[in-house]
Amino acid sequence: MQNFRIYIIAFLLFPLSFFAEDGSQLWLRFPNVKNGISSDKIISKGKNPTLEIAKKELRTYWQGQAVELRTEKSLKHLKDGYTIKSNSDKIIISAAKETGLLYAVYHILRLQQTKSDVNYLNITEKPSYDVRILNHWDNLDGSVERGYAGKSLWKWEDLPNKISPRYEEYARANASIGINSVVLNNVNASPNMLRTDYLQKVKVLADIFRPYGIKVYLSVNFSSPKVLGGLENSDPLNKNVQNWWKDKASEIYTLIPDFGGFLVKANSEGQPGPQDYGRTHADGANMMADILKPFGGIVMWRAFVYSPSKEDRAKQAYLEFLPLDGKFRDNVIVQIKNGPIDFQPREPFNPLFGALKKTSEMAEFQITQEYLGFSNHLVFLAPLFKETLESDTYADGKGSTVAKITDGSVRNNKITAIAGVANIGEDANWTGNIFAQANWYAFGRLAWNHELTSEQIADEWIKMTFTNDQKFVNPVKEMMLTSRETAVDYMMPLGLHHIFAFDHHYGPEPWGDIPGGRPDWMPVYYHKADENGVGFDRTNTGSNAVSQYFSPLNNTFGNIEACPENLLLWFHHVPWNYKMKDGKTLWEELCFKYDSGVKNVREYQKIWDKMEPYVDAERFKQIQSKLKIQSKDAVWWKDACLLYFQTFSKMRIPYDIERPIHELDDLKKIKLDLKHHN
Amino acid sequence: MQNFRIYIIAFLLFPLSFFAEDGSQLWLRFPNVKNGISSDKIISKGKNPTLEIAKKELRTYWQGQAVELRTEKSLKHLKDGYTIKSNSDKIIISAAKETGLLYAVYHILRLQQTKSDVNYLNITEKPSYDVRILNHWDNLDGSVERGYAGKSLWKWEDLPNKISPRYEEYARANASIGINSVVLNNVNASPNMLRTDYLQKVKVLADIFRPYGIKVYLSVNFSSPKVLGGLENSDPLNKNVQNWWKDKASEIYTLIPDFGGFLVKANSEGQPGPQDYGRTHADGANMMADILKPFGGIVMWRAFVYSPSKEDRAKQAYLEFLPLDGKFRDNVIVQIKNGPIDFQPREPFNPLFGALKKTSEMAEFQITQEYLGFSNHLVFLAPLFKETLESDTYADGKGSTVAKITDGSVRNNKITAIAGVANIGEDANWTGNIFAQANWYAFGRLAWNHELTSEQIADEWIKMTFTNDQKFVNPVKEMMLTSRETAVDYMMPLGLHHIFAFDHHYGPEPWGDIPGGRPDWMPVYYHKADENGVGFDRTNTGSNAVSQYFSPLNNTFGNIEACPENLLLWFHHVPWNYKMKDGKTLWEELCFKYDSGVKNVREYQKIWDKMEPYVDAERFKQIQSKLKIQSKDAVWWKDACLLYFQTFSKMRIPYDIERPIHELDDLKKIKLDLKHHN
Repeated sequence: MQNFRIYIIAFLLFPLSFFAEDGSQLWLRFPNVKNGISSDKIISKGKNPTLEIAKKELRTYWQGQAVELRTEKSLKHLKDGYTIKSNSDKIIISAAKETGLLYAVYHILRLQQTKSDVNYLNITEKPSYDVRILNHWDNLDGSVERGYAGKSLWKWEDLPNKISPRYEEYARANASIGINSVVLNNVNASPNMLRTDYLQKVKVLADIFRPYGIKVYLSVNFSSPKVLGGLENSDPLNKNVQNWWKDKASEIYTLIPDFGGFLVKANSEGQPGPQDYGRTHADGANMMADILKPFGGIVMWRAFVYSPSKEDRAKQAYLEFLPLDGKFRDNVIVQIKNGPIDFQPREPFNPLFGALKKTSEMAEFQITQEYLGFSNHLVFLAPLFKETLESDTYADGKGSTVAKITDGSVRNNKITAIAGVANIGEDANWTGNIFAQANWYAFGRLAWNHELTSEQIADEWIKMTFTNDQKFVNPVKEMMLTSRETAVDYMMPLGLHHIFAFDHHYGPEPWGDIPGGRPDWMPVYYHKADENGVGFDRTNTGSNAVSQYFSPLNNTFGNIEACPENLLLWFHHVPWNYKMKDGKTLWEELCFKYDSGVKNVREYQKIWDKMEPYVDAERFKQIQSKLKIQSKDAVWWKDACLLYFQTFSKMRIPYDIERPIHELDDLKKIKLDLKHHN
Repeated sequence: MQNFRIYIIAFLLFPLSFFAEDGSQLWLRFPNVKNGISSDKIISKGKNPTLEIAKKELRTYWQGQAVELRTEKSLKHLKDGYTIKSNSDKIIISAAKETGLLYAVYHILRLQQTKSDVNYLNITEKPSYDVRILNHWDNLDGSVERGYAGKSLWKWEDLPNKISPRYEEYARANASIGINSVVLNNVNASPNMLRTDYLQKVKVLADIFRPYGIKVYLSVNFSSPKVLGGLENSDPLNKNVQNWWKDKASEIYTLIPDFGGFLVKANSEGQPGPQDYGRTHADGANMMADILKPFGGIVMWRAFVYSPSKEDRAKQAYLEFLPLDGKFRDNVIVQIKNGPIDFQPREPFNPLFGALKKTSEMAEFQITQEYLGFSNHLVFLAPLFKETLESDTYADGKGSTVAKITDGSVRNNKITAIAGVANIGEDANWTGNIFAQANWYAFGRLAWNHELTSEQIADEWIKMTFTNDQKFVNPVKEMMLTSRETAVDYMMPLGLHHIFAFDHHYGPEPWGDIPGGRPDWMPVYYHKADENGVGFDRTNTGSNAVSQYFSPLNNTFGNIEACPENLLLWFHHVPWNYKMKDGKTLWEELCFKYDSGVKNVREYQKIWDKMEPYVDAERFKQIQSKLKIQSKDAVWWKDACLLYFQTFSKMRIPYDIERPIHELDDLKKIKLDLKHHN
């Protein structure tokens, strides 16, 4: 019995990765070699904890020449950035802050891991954004809204006493790609998050994250003063309310001196907010901003607001926030979802970008695949992120892309930031699907440098996560780079959007329409299919959402001939027999797009199966299984959408396309027992 | 209210076919024209009921020249056959019997319907078999064993008083293709079938069928004397038992003077039989034959017997019956399933054919698709029927095909017969699937003339059932003619057999193995897959079932190089890397076969969808839906079998083949809630 217990303990202590490749190592797979460089070849001054981590990483994994780590005040203009210079004898890394040195260490380890030459380096890196932040939509009960990788990583019940080793692993992974901020809890925030006992738990995480250069932020519930403090209301102009927030801020900063600030979802989808008291979003945000200002904290105020009005949902954030431009404090930043609806497979960029001329703006992307097949579908999101970032808003003339509007290069933004809704959970592989790790990676890398190409990011990630063998890298990269367009094709091509199953958003429900329900929650609201055609008329004959875009985009989007075909049905109600640029009718084009999506997923299955010799059995099998699901789902999407839209188009599916295998009536009966969180 | 009732009655009386095309008209779609020939152009003598039907068919549907119907004793050698001679003014039909005249009328109506020239006819037809019989596996409770077209057509509860119009429609359909005999009830027979009250119901059916030239037969339970008569046993040598049967026969023939005889399944799958009393099959059959002889009745004694012995199931019928050769009365005919196992998608012919040199033999085919996707899959069975019929047994030298052994042309058989297990139920379209009607049709046509090609039969059936338009006929015929091989490919190619799900036999269960269960009911018994290979060694190193075949077949089948590849795994346990004739390994070939099956079904979907302009909406949709199911099922089969066999072969599925979309473990969990009857 004694022996048995020893055995069990030994088993638990032994790193799991020695037993099975479970994907838990992410892209951090530097060989832990005995012949790494010796301590005396690492030159540095001081004993800062961040520096210690940097040195430990070098000691454990660096196989190259000597490395000198220098903090240099003169490099302050690089912010978290650094320089790397090398010859074959030595690498000199310089940065204003120790965090910069740590980032640089991960940089050279990445070079080593991707088999790049490290002997003639002359690198200067400066991050695109100051705040590179993950938003965790994690609830205090351990569930994760739109989480597809198990329960929350944060074990609130165990904290502050019991500390999971994964907290530090998480911080290390983020630091390795430059992420420096995290919002720990769901934007649909529980007031309890600000309870003293929870703040003490948060402090523990903040302490673990700090050496990795990561600041903690919290989502706050606007009603916290009333709910938690027992006040008569949470009116932002109420002195008692302000005092409550002041006290709370003091309490937080006493525990966490470098606390980052608040993320607020107010007056949206049932959340409380300043409008409950007749105040504006600016009133609410500014009250908090004033309180956080002395501590150096910021307020990220979400622009994701819409109500069940007659106004096109796509227009509402703009209409709400434009009148408030110039009214926000300088430590408020408006957090804007990449598109005007809600993280669809493809949206045009949100017209708010650039429209708020006197307000700091930041983009919010969704890394978790709420609308992209959860953790079942292989969809590499760098191309989606970049599509928004590279969209030219024309706000300050040609070239004022979303990236440049938000990174401070066009305007002199006080704060620059970029947010990604995390896809991380307690699953051993962190993200539910090995390939979803690439989206966490891609977000971090783009937050650091939005000029990286999707191809570069995929290339790095594949080599670090799997192998440098070109026979693996090239086909897998090709698969990743086309995967987002493939998902658009089998889900909602040509600008279709939000025809997902209710609530959980997995699978198709284009017929979705609940009598008496909120129209803007109904798929039929978004596609507006009828016998004449399909699509949402957002031109001046329709909702005129196009008018929210700067010239010439308002005209480009508003003109059916000029509108990019991949957004056609977003902006136009188009006749079924409309001639597309390739000569096909709209209906035929729709059919071919769906079919192409299916074919591509099947091709991915083949590509992946061929990779078997290059991958460990565990990860090979995991991804193979996920691709099977994706392949089935793609056919499900195709059949559901084509059979449904066919009831309007009354046209035949072109005969060179694989025929549906489902009955529309059967598909309509599918009700998956999924929640919007797990 | 009164009006409403009248409306309802009017609705019920109005022929349903006026409202919707439900497939109920089968292949009998002669336009009911007002300008058919007048009664005075139909020349005939006598007032025989069969003749009246023939004349009515002509009056209602014949649009050509005058028709003379002559009964001529001199044509007795043609049995049920006839001659047709015509010029543009007149057609002269002659036959020994009125039934022959009726058959001939359907012949010219078929010519008219298929747009053949009817002006220069000089036709002589003589049926291949005397007894062209359908076996209904219908139970007295209205269920149908292996029935996939609804409940039984026979409404035993309603009979003898209430008579469904479908009884006569059924008789007419059979007569139109030459079927002249029917066994009304399941071979797993209830003793109650012989109860006086049931016999009175049978009499009603016999009376309806008789004018259409159809004789009624019954399956009998060997224990009837004991169960129904209260005797001490049912020993065939027991005088009391013999007397009981004599009395029963008298009773039957009093009610039905032209009663055909008995079909007996004895000592098989739990049915009682003479072996229960230490008697042989011959003892049992002869007792009945002696009793039926004075009435002109016959006994069809099934050779489908096997027991859970160590002996290869495929050998057992032969072993059982060969010693009895020469011991059967001349009004006994041994009814032998086409293959030695049980109506598999492909079997070699049953080695009993030709082996019983002094015994009449008849083939039993399964028209109902127990092992071929029920009424969901489009599988045209003429090629399967003909494959057996044209198989050379070499029993009486080269050229002694199963057809010639059973039709009397090689041996001087006293009785010749051919049986098909019906696929008919109460569904409006009779067979559950419009295309399954073609199998009823094909069986009838081949029973009449086994030299017809599958192509001829398909051509006739398509033209009669749908249209003469070549744009429809050609692609649909191509689909039908390849459909059986397609089913073999996606279910069990290369001689695999009986790897169906337990009991209901729908879908794959190659892993099927129940510890302690009867080995010969286990799929693993039949495929014997292991790390070395797959297939049942029936050569002289194995069960030596090959020895039951006449030379040179015993050598052909027994030699792995000479064995036809489509039966390879029936006769051999073949290494996974065995080189096939096309250079592929066995494993690769297996993969390509399954994949080819899937591809073909998808192609059928396309073919059928293109046929939309040529078909009524109802039948178009019905078949489209069935093909969707078949398409899904084909992928299910492919994935289940390849993933399962891969656990033995350990070889990769060739990369040019579409990848599996299922997980083997998930497929193993599928337990369909299907019974073996409905």
